[in-house]
Parts: sequence; C-alpha cells; structure tokens
Amino acid sequence: MKHYGYEDLAVLVSERGHYSLKKAADVLGIGRDSLIPIKTDNNNRVVVSEMKAKLDELKAKNIKPFAIIGVAGTTETGTIDPLSELADLAHAYGCHFHVDAAWGGATLMSKKYRHLLNGIERADSVTIDAHKQLYVPMGAGMVIFKNPELMTSIEHHAEYILRKGSKDLGSHTLEGSRSGMAMLLYASLNIISRQGYEMLINNSIEKAQYFAGLIEAHPEFELVTHPELCLLTYRYVPARTQQALTLATADERETLLAALDDLTQFIQKRQRESGKSFVSRTRITPERWDRRLTTVFRVVLANPLTTENILQEVLAEQVEIAKQSFISSPQIRTLTNRILTRHNIA
Amino acid sequence: MKHYGYEDLAVLVSERGHYSLKKAADVLGIGRDSLIPIKTDNNNRVVVSEMKAKLDELKAKNIKPFAIIGVAGTTETGTIDPLSELADLAHAYGCHFHVDAAWGGATLMSKKYRHLLNGIERADSVTIDAHKQLYVPMGAGMVIFKNPELMTSIEHHAEYILRKGSKDLGSHTLEGSRSGMAMLLYASLNIISRQGYEMLINNSIEKAQYFAGLIEAHPEFELVTHPELCLLTYRYVPARTQQALTLATADERETLLAALDDLTQFIQKRQRESGKSFVSRTRITPERWDRRLTTVFRVVLANPLTTENILQEVLAEQVEIAKQSFISSPQIRTLTNRILTRHNIA
Repeated sequence: MKHYGYEDLAVLVSERGHYSLKKAADVLGIGRDSLIPIKTDNNNRVVVSEMKAKLDELKAKNIKPFAIIGVAGTTETGTIDPLSELADLAHAYGCHFHVDAAWGGATLMSKKYRHLLNGIERADSVTIDAHKQLYVPMGAGMVIFKNPELMTSIEHHAEYILRKGSKDLGSHTLEGSRSGMAMLLYASLNIISRQGYEMLINNSIEKAQYFAGLIEAHPEFELVTHPELCLLTYRYVPARTQQALTLATADERETLLAALDDLTQFIQKRQRESGKSFVSRTRITPERWDRRLTTVFRVVLANPLTTENILQEVLAEQVEIAKQSFISSPQIRTLTNRILTRHNIA
Repeated sequence: MKHYGYEDLAVLVSERGHYSLKKAADVLGIGRDSLIPIKTDNNNRVVVSEMKAKLDELKAKNIKPFAIIGVAGTTETGTIDPLSELADLAHAYGCHFHVDAAWGGATLMSKKYRHLLNGIERADSVTIDAHKQLYVPMGAGMVIFKNPELMTSIEHHAEYILRKGSKDLGSHTLEGSRSGMAMLLYASLNIISRQGYEMLINNSIEKAQYFAGLIEAHPEFELVTHPELCLLTYRYVPARTQQALTLATADERETLLAALDDLTQFIQKRQRESGKSFVSRTRITPERWDRRLTTVFRVVLANPLTTENILQEVLAEQVEIAKQSFISSPQIRTLTNRILTRHNIA
C-alpha cells in the first residue's frame, strides 16, 4: 500500500454483507477491519449517501477503497441494494464493483422479477451460487467476471496438470481437485431451463409474499422484514405483549425484548427438534427496535412443494410450542400483565 | 514481520512440493518467492543438509522460517521425504512442522508399508486427501492438527449459521456451504475398513513395483523414478538411442533429449485420445540428465482392477504409438544413426 502511496486499503459493503467477505478480507491480508460495514435503511438496503460519506472520509485519510460490494439478496433478509446507484459510486471513485448475488442471482431467470436486480449488468464481477435458487446440490458457487483477463493475476500452473493453456479450474481458484459439479449445473440449465427457473423463482417470491401476509394478519406474530425475494424474517409476540411494548418503560421494554429473544430461540430449536418443519433463525438490528440486536425466525421459501397449508401449520405449531416454554413465556406474561394492569387494560 | 523484529517470513519445502503450496503462500500474503524450494537427491527426497543450510542462511538474514513442510508422497514421483530428520530440524529451529501426506497418507492404513512414513507422528499438522488412496470421490481433502486449538486463529462466525460453539466446518475453512463429503469418507472407512485399505494400498505399491520391473526389463524404456508408493515415472527411448546418448556430443545429446521430450508428449496425447489407456505426464529434473527439465510418463497405480496384463499392453501400445510419430521419431532415428555410425556401430 505504502509503495503506491496509500496508507491502507478498504472494501465497502452493507452491514448485512455475508460473513464470507470477512474471510476474503483475511485472505487478501487487509484484515477484517478493512471490510467496512455501511449502515442499512429500515428495508435493510445499504444507505448510498452513507457509503459516499465513508468514501470521502477514507479519501481524506489517504486510504484506498479498492472495491465496493453491492448485495443482491442479503443472506438474512433477502434484500437487494440499490445496485445502479452503487455502480455510479464505484465509477466515480474508481473502485472495482462487485455484486454478491449468491442468493438473488437466479432471479435473473425470471422475466417478471429480474428488474429487482437492475444495475447488476454494470458490475465488474458477480457471485451467483448455483446451490441456492438454481437448485443444484451444495458446493456450486460461481464468480463471473466482466473481463476474464482479471483472473490471470492469480494464475498458477503445475507441470503434471494445469499446464499453460489448460482449462482446469485449479489454475485460478484456491481449490485444486474437485468434483464435476459444473455438470450438474449444465444439466439443470438444460433440463429445468429458463422457463422452469422462471416458474420456480416466481413461485418462491410469491409464496414468500403470501406467508408475509399470513404473518401480518396473525395477531400473535410480528413480520420483521418484508420479502423482496423468497426470504423473510418474523417472530412470535403475543398480541397483549405487542400492546404492552407500546406502553412499557425503557427498562420494561428491554426486559420484554430480551425475553422474546429467548422465546424465539426456544421455539426455533424445539420446532427443529420436533422434525415436522424447520425455520432457521438469525439476529438482526431492526430500525423499529432502535437497532437492538433481535433474534428472529428466518424463512427461505425455495422448496416448490411447500404449500400454503404447510405455511399455516408452521405458524400454528409455533404458537403451540410457545406454550411449552416454562421460562420465557411466563416471564413475558407476568410483565405484560403488570404493564397492562398499570394502564387499566384487562 | 517488522513488528516482530523480522525482515520477512519463509516456508521451506522440497522442490517437489505441490503447486497448491504456492497458492497457500499467496493467500498468506508472504508471496510465492517466500516458499523456498530445497534441492532433492536423486531419489527425489529433500536433502536435509541443504534445508539446514538454508535455515542458517535465512537466520543470518533475519528472515523467520515459520514452517517446514515434509512431503509424504510427492505428486510427480510418489517419494517420501525423511520425515524424522525434518521433525528434528523443525524442533531445532522452532518451526511449525507440516507433512503434506495428501498422496501418501493412506499408506498409514497398511501395516506392511506404514513404516515408510515414520516421523509423520511428530508433525504439527498433516494433510491427507481422502480422494486419493482412500478411494472417496474428488474434493475430500483433510488437514489434521496435533493441537486443534490452532484453528481458532482463523475462526469466523455468523448470526444465521456458524454461531459460537457450532460445529460447522465453515467457521475455520475458506469454503462455506459444501456437500456432505465427510459422509462418504465415514462410509468408506466403515465399509472398506482398515483391512480393505491395507489390501488396496499393498496391492497398489506392489503393482507399481511390478510395473517398474517390466519397464527396466524392456530394452526400449527408461525407468526415470523408482516407485516408493504407487507412483513411478518413465519414458520411451529406443534401445539404439539409449546407446547413442552415451556416445553423443553435448549438442547432440541436447538435440536428442529435446526430441525425446516431444516424442513423450506425442505418445502421451495419442494414447489418451485413443481411449484404451491413460498415463499422465509431467516434467521433472532427473539427476541422470544433469537436472535437465525432462518430460516423462507419470503412472499412478491406484485402480485395483489394473492387471499385470494391462500394464504389459500399456507398454506395447506406447511402442506402437511411437512409430506413428512423423516428426520426433524420424529425427531421433536419424541422429541416433549418425552418432552410432560415427562410432562404427551398426
């Protein structure tokens, strides 16, 4: 860095960026701290003005931001950053523009929804995982470069394999020997085809919209993030507790929210163990709860066999499991009652 | 490095070290030039005295050699470094001792031949590829640490997965999502079992010894490296040309050797294309040919269905293919004749 007259290097990405980016920063030797997280808005999209401000701040410190990463489908909430605006920014500041479309990339197969990824065509490189919405088994990640020559900077050769001119993937990837996963992708693209993927993707997105509606209509649930793709997050909050939260003191609210985190974790673990259905969980910082780290259910609606009926049952099961909690549920109930009683609500 | 009072870092390994080590050096940020290749003897084993001399030289330059790598089965010749002596050296110089037993590691399953890897038990870390002699499909590499705590230095976590305490591999590897390959290894270890592997390994080693004998006994072939495991290298050299090489001037010898390189490449490609059998090829620097970079056939005898008869046919086919060469074969013949005629040999 010093050699080129810079104090340091940096990569900018939304605070919802995937954890693997930290691995990449470690591998590049710039360290995790040089992967700079930029604030997201209440829709979990990166705030472009914040990114611009950070770019100016880095410039003032003589730190080179060599790449900007746009996220097209965050892992936790399935949100898509404003890619066109990020492309403008990357162009203006002379940064490599990478789009992490590991999750959302397959949406390009849908004529109906591909517009969600507008701006991705301006990326210098794009990640798409075939093992997500392209329905190929685990371990089929891809990186696509606008200029394939960029890869030569990390090329390796060997005498017994990867000879110059050889097409082995091992010459420009970390892995050497590997299984012929590309065959599965090739087969899927030919068998499922563009139309098939369009159907799968549209179906997933619309099922997520249906599930979001179900959650919003249910008095005992709170939709935490609306689905843009087929991901959403939510949690179970008893109706009376929702009311109590609006009337609670700061201390009471914190106690209630902490107990709700415990309850969400309890329900998620118990539901997974019961073996009938599985939702994952994560922790995010919703605007609504003052960016407090909040445990939520995370649902990915990728299985075409998931019916609306199954989704209704998932919620019903969660309500039942909540009743089995002998620690957080009673704690929530007692505090809820105390707050509502104070406000003369039965 | 400077922070710790060193000018630079280095890793030492035999010049036969696998090309992936260069990738590792790149990833570590020390650069390929800091992966220091140490000379091998005429059996392709690292020369321990050379490594010691290099360690002293680095010390004098205030460069920290933080790791010594012993190779237990070089990729090209299947040779095993003197691991005990390297362990002594690593201990004396305070280096991490890694053994790359990607190839040879499975030999530990054989009571008869495991002694070849003596000293491996003193390694701080060992690589073994299950997709080689453990007969699991491609992409099943392993690293085993004497002290598993060492891995925590590269640990990563994420909220939706890899939570603290989680056993996901993704927390300390570069890859995240991947297929459940470990299941195949687990199954193979249980189904093939120690006894089965012993049979497979012994069989491979002994078949390589048989093939080496066949090559040595054949007047038109030259065994380039003797098998220690199930790998060997050799090439086709007409009997008269073998004689001519001993009588040639330096220039003639160089011309003959270059033409033989072309011929080896021709035979290897044609044999692969004909589809009946496959031997790979590589380039090594045999002591016998003044460490000149020489193209050779590389044979890995891992398939238990390969019979002695098949091995005889491989050689017979190569003799036939050599006759089809209309560039290097005539060139070799003409020059051979000229040299032998000059020495009055018919």
